[in-house]
Amino acid sequence: MALGVVVVGSVALDTLELRGHVHPDVLGGSASFFSVAASLFAPVRLVAVVGEDFPEPHRAYLAERGVDLAGLERAPGRTFRWRGRYSDDLQSRTSLDTQLNVFADFRPQLPAAYRDAELLFLGNIHPALQLEVLDQVRSARLVALDTMNFWIGGELAALKKVLRRVDTVILNDEEARQLSGEHNLPRAARAIHALGPRTIIVKRGDAGALLFYWHDGKQGVFAAPAYPLEEVVDPTGAGDTFAGGFIGSLARSAAFDAGAIRRAMFHGSVLASFCVEGIAHDRLRTVTMTEIEARYAAFCDLTHFETLRL
Amino acid sequence: MALGVVVVGSVALDTLELRGHVHPDVLGGSASFFSVAASLFAPVRLVAVVGEDFPEPHRAYLAERGVDLAGLERAPGRTFRWRGRYSDDLQSRTSLDTQLNVFADFRPQLPAAYRDAELLFLGNIHPALQLEVLDQVRSARLVALDTMNFWIGGELAALKKVLRRVDTVILNDEEARQLSGEHNLPRAARAIHALGPRTIIVKRGDAGALLFYWHDGKQGVFAAPAYPLEEVVDPTGAGDTFAGGFIGSLARSAAFDAGAIRRAMFHGSVLASFCVEGIAHDRLRTVTMTEIEARYAAFCDLTHFETLRL
Repeated sequence: MALGVVVVGSVALDTLELRGHVHPDVLGGSASFFSVAASLFAPVRLVAVVGEDFPEPHRAYLAERGVDLAGLERAPGRTFRWRGRYSDDLQSRTSLDTQLNVFADFRPQLPAAYRDAELLFLGNIHPALQLEVLDQVRSARLVALDTMNFWIGGELAALKKVLRRVDTVILNDEEARQLSGEHNLPRAARAIHALGPRTIIVKRGDAGALLFYWHDGKQGVFAAPAYPLEEVVDPTGAGDTFAGGFIGSLARSAAFDAGAIRRAMFHGSVLASFCVEGIAHDRLRTVTMTEIEARYAAFCDLTHFETLRL
Repeated sequence: MALGVVVVGSVALDTLELRGHVHPDVLGGSASFFSVAASLFAPVRLVAVVGEDFPEPHRAYLAERGVDLAGLERAPGRTFRWRGRYSDDLQSRTSLDTQLNVFADFRPQLPAAYRDAELLFLGNIHPALQLEVLDQVRSARLVALDTMNFWIGGELAALKKVLRRVDTVILNDEEARQLSGEHNLPRAARAIHALGPRTIIVKRGDAGALLFYWHDGKQGVFAAPAYPLEEVVDPTGAGDTFAGGFIGSLARSAAFDAGAIRRAMFHGSVLASFCVEGIAHDRLRTVTMTEIEARYAAFCDLTHFETLRL
């Protein structure tokens, strides 16, 4: 029986400029990608805020994917909006416009039914709010956190306070470097471990993800490649989808040992590889468990080899 | 019994500027790194040219590592020299000075004893010279090739002529993109496959290496991470060391099936991880087989997980 996941983060309306095409008001926000990915493996309860303009079809889609929306607040005003333009090779992007709107005054309040969650994912919001949520889910057996350069630069003291109570951190490489002050990723992970977390995942885009963990005083390292796709359409949400697949897989395993964590890395990579095949949620919207299982098998083959002595 | 390897390429004197220190006239050149790495696994015969100024200790080191130097010509003049400066994060470098010297008139002549080699590695030299060497080793069961942007841009017709007769190409990501005209790496590999080779290895620095292969009409993909090191001292020669470890491992296996190729990818990564731990050849000079076996085991653990159904 899968454990329950609660995620707090952003749900947004994105306008994406990709290879000369504009995709207006598509579903975005870290928590939307996370919750859909995680819900493929385990029950997910979402805590976020949208405005009065949030389209009903987006809400219906999340509900159809099985995401519990009791904690999705609808506040007076407009939904958080972001507009970005990608380079043609999709390796970089420029933020053209960010409107926090209702997200600016977001104070997450968890429904009573959310407070017994076993896994808690603190998405990329103000560390003070992450702490408030953490205080509301006393039952959590595993707490994971994402953050970004903005909070690392401006709210480091508050962030460190949260980190002391967090098991797992999921960051991209630049965030890991900024948080630790170390360019070298193994050293960066060691420095972040010293702040509290015992599992550090460094996402590296199409270079895959590195896992550093300390269990029973022993350090482990694991490398998961990104699945090499011939067609990448839109990288938006890939990192959040990875995190959702990772946490969802752990919830499904109901175990947090090294084997479960490594398997979860692959599930995260598999889900992220589907995410980038469509605009925004387009591919996650249609992906089936059969497709996930087939790509998981291909993923295993991608890294598998028979261990032989020299 | 390991198969014999012949490598043709450059042996150079490098002056490296690394983090404020200058290391003058250290041993460099693609063929020096390749041959030392490969010689840890199999007998290697080197074809290259040096000048009258080539230091005897460098020559003695190669000989001590077991590299057959019968094909290392000593020509009147000065050795090929390169001077480069690395950024502090070691992610980029600037060529400050390149003097071809005796390398400018290099016409590789293989000693008679070299012509029965089973594995031939055509290092990064003019495609016309690669072709001349290929014509001298009629016995080769596996021919691998490296090249660079300079030849892809200026000698594409000649390069394509060589590629039609080559089994394996080992390139970095930018070279693969330039040669294929495709940014996406799986598509780039497919395009290079259409030029002749059925095994394409794309080196990605600290993001590891991707292997694309077509055997019996079936495509396979394999991803080998780079070993996450806490201390990287000098990336010079890492790609050539990877190639040497890869080809040396295949020679030792005396098999070119998918299992042997995947194992060779790991051996390449292991050797490259030692290479970057010292200036130029400093770490390769001292590395022992016990150390290689220990890191190979760590490397297996880095990517190993128990395959489980969802």
